Amino acid sequence: MSRWEPNARGRLEESALELYTEQGFDETTVAEIAERAGLTERTFFRHFTDKREVLFGGQDALLQLFVDSIGGAPEAVSPLDAVGAALATAGPFFESRHLHARRRQAVIAANPRLQERELIKLASIAVAIADALRRRGTPDSTSTLAAEAGVAVFKVAFDRWVHKGRRDQLPQFIGDAMDELRAVSSS
Amino acid sequence: MSRWEPNARGRLEESALELYTEQGFDETTVAEIAERAGLTERTFFRHFTDKREVLFGGQDALLQLFVDSIGGAPEAVSPLDAVGAALATAGPFFESRHLHARRRQAVIAANPRLQERELIKLASIAVAIADALRRRGTPDSTSTLAAEAGVAVFKVAFDRWVHKGRRDQLPQFIGDAMDELRAVSSS
Repeated sequence: MSRWEPNARGRLEESALELYTEQGFDETTVAEIAERAGLTERTFFRHFTDKREVLFGGQDALLQLFVDSIGGAPEAVSPLDAVGAALATAGPFFESRHLHARRRQAVIAANPRLQERELIKLASIAVAIADALRRRGTPDSTSTLAAEAGVAVFKVAFDRWVHKGRRDQLPQFIGDAMDELRAVSSS
Repeated sequence: MSRWEPNARGRLEESALELYTEQGFDETTVAEIAERAGLTERTFFRHFTDKREVLFGGQDALLQLFVDSIGGAPEAVSPLDAVGAALATAGPFFESRHLHARRRQAVIAANPRLQERELIKLASIAVAIADALRRRGTPDSTSTLAAEAGVAVFKVAFDRWVHKGRRDQLPQFIGDAMDELRAVSSS
């Protein structure tokens, strides 16, 4: 078998999600994932540190997208608008991964330890967004509030998109949830 | 030793926090906590299931306070105002525990696993607040957004109160952070 496998990462993700869905996350081994993908365990570990990273590895890339977007926002843009624009960059990121996202969500919902990991990842995204706002000169507590509110908006919008949206609708759902947050805060 | 120990729970909490501060949470045993409090391990386990519960046991009572307050809010009160009023009930709850809260915060900040536990507890408070809002008839996503924004407000206010506030200032800090959230959301 050659060292380079075409789309090995994608095949491993696909196989892992199938197995987590069919038989549960805890019951699935890396050997089974590699076998289903027609690849070796060695290849698995070239792409992922463990079977949990198949579910959470992408979030670091997402976090970096958000942070870069906030860093590049014009000075005149308000903190929450900068967060809203950053969240919308998740649209293209997830557009080709709608089914993947839906399956992933179901796997996580079925496993309390994965839910905890998801919470911790979301909290680390909020911390990174708040730091990015602070670097733009937003006051400390305003940064924290805008970041936490932004992550709440993202959770609501993402959940709706996963269950009820079309693949290209995530940015629209984020905009709608942001409007809802503004409505909640002004009443 | 009689079965009833005056203020055993308070003495155990005090001793536990002292030891966690002096030598670290992981390094402290229940036997040491009981010894420092002049009580037995048996007495410890009548009050707490384990040494972690000394830090997190109070949050269930807090969650119940919040839920009861939202359940009792007049119908005309907006969701976010109901959340704000609920959060303010934490004032009397924490007023006699300012030093305790400060020490607890320092112990948690020093230990990543305790930070994770704190995040999960705060997330469960957000879920409970959202459920309480839904029971009042607030739409699903509005309930989630108001609850998550409320918990963000609480985190910011509590942190400020622990580090910079007087013991009676928590409700005021919650009001200030709520105003900040509204300002962030309207700009």
